[in-house]
Amino acid sequence: MSIKLYDLVGKDHSRPFSPHCWKVRMALAHKNLSYETVPTSFTEVRAVEGGASKIIPVIRDGETVVSDSFAIALYLEHTYPDRPTLFGGQGGESMARFIERWSLATIHPFIGSAVLMDIHECLEPVDQAHFRKTREARFNKPLEEVPVGRDEKLEAFRASLAPLRSTLAEQPFIGGVTPLFCDYIVFGALQWARVVSTYGFLASDDPVAVWFERCLALHEGIGASVPAAA
Amino acid sequence: MSIKLYDLVGKDHSRPFSPHCWKVRMALAHKNLSYETVPTSFTEVRAVEGGASKIIPVIRDGETVVSDSFAIALYLEHTYPDRPTLFGGQGGESMARFIERWSLATIHPFIGSAVLMDIHECLEPVDQAHFRKTREARFNKPLEEVPVGRDEKLEAFRASLAPLRSTLAEQPFIGGVTPLFCDYIVFGALQWARVVSTYGFLASDDPVAVWFERCLALHEGIGASVPAAA
Repeated sequence: MSIKLYDLVGKDHSRPFSPHCWKVRMALAHKNLSYETVPTSFTEVRAVEGGASKIIPVIRDGETVVSDSFAIALYLEHTYPDRPTLFGGQGGESMARFIERWSLATIHPFIGSAVLMDIHECLEPVDQAHFRKTREARFNKPLEEVPVGRDEKLEAFRASLAPLRSTLAEQPFIGGVTPLFCDYIVFGALQWARVVSTYGFLASDDPVAVWFERCLALHEGIGASVPAAA
Repeated sequence: MSIKLYDLVGKDHSRPFSPHCWKVRMALAHKNLSYETVPTSFTEVRAVEGGASKIIPVIRDGETVVSDSFAIALYLEHTYPDRPTLFGGQGGESMARFIERWSLATIHPFIGSAVLMDIHECLEPVDQAHFRKTREARFNKPLEEVPVGRDEKLEAFRASLAPLRSTLAEQPFIGGVTPLFCDYIVFGALQWARVVSTYGFLASDDPVAVWFERCLALHEGIGASVPAAA
């Protein structure tokens, strides 16, 4: 029986956009595990698996329900140890946590603000209302004002990727010669941006952009299979 | 025959201060390898092992000479695989590189500027002249002006440690339940600051400071064995 992935979508179910769900899609593909996705809108999340989690991704694997992308990756690693590794050992499990926290602190705030209206445009009206209410409470301003000033912050955003850029001068993936879950952590954030927005977060000659293209092609191109926003 | 570590010092040979040499000291202790240090001043570096490297640390292990702290850690890992691991697997080797680049991009520039005059004070006159010449060329200003403004930048520096702080809310070390080389990478930078300067880089209740205290106590307290600058 294949694994069930509850995957965040808007109006177009063929364009999943959640960064955290993308991490899990890539992890499932990396492990060569068969899975089916359950397209899930913002307002449907609370009903997933009887209220298993306030956020998705959530997976069901037989009798087991797991939420949180990092917890799911660890679950897959330990449940399917004979499949390709997602962490490359215990040290990688611990250090991937650091990379997750770096991505959340460095990449997510800028992208999340810059594409807020783009996400809103992707949603059904009932989800738009939910999105507006929760995000306006989080940012403490009207939705439309959140992306304002993104152009002025773009250079600092690109500069903040220096540790990643410098790492990629040493090795093709954060995980080394081949990708690991740590790559999917950062990929998920940039794929989120790519699927919902035409905004140019990266210069095309940035080594980070070149690495991102490599990630889009992984696992029979599941990342690239969703066209960029146009 | 014990490993020889060329270790950067100033006037007081009992107070080694190089962040990169501290990484290697901790790595040698972690592997339970016996070593002797060769106190080496800035102007003596070029003569080390017949000009093996422009910078230290350099180690000699029998017939093998290795320079660069990360290369040394990898050498120790693969030469002494039966000793406690420094990386916790291949994934850890690759992800530790990211943590090195993060530390170099995030921690080193602020500490390096803030303590520049403190380092200068630690040196013999001949090394002071060398240090002034090379650093004034690098910073393109008089040595005395480099630390100016550190108080205004301190808050942003502390904020930039968010990914580390957040990781330490999940696990006691960056390497997980026990420390790995990735911990020594960041430890080295903060130990550099601690040995040369009384400046308060971290608030005492910062989880990063609490982790740093844990690192000072590791391996029979070799970090703490050098008293903080007073």
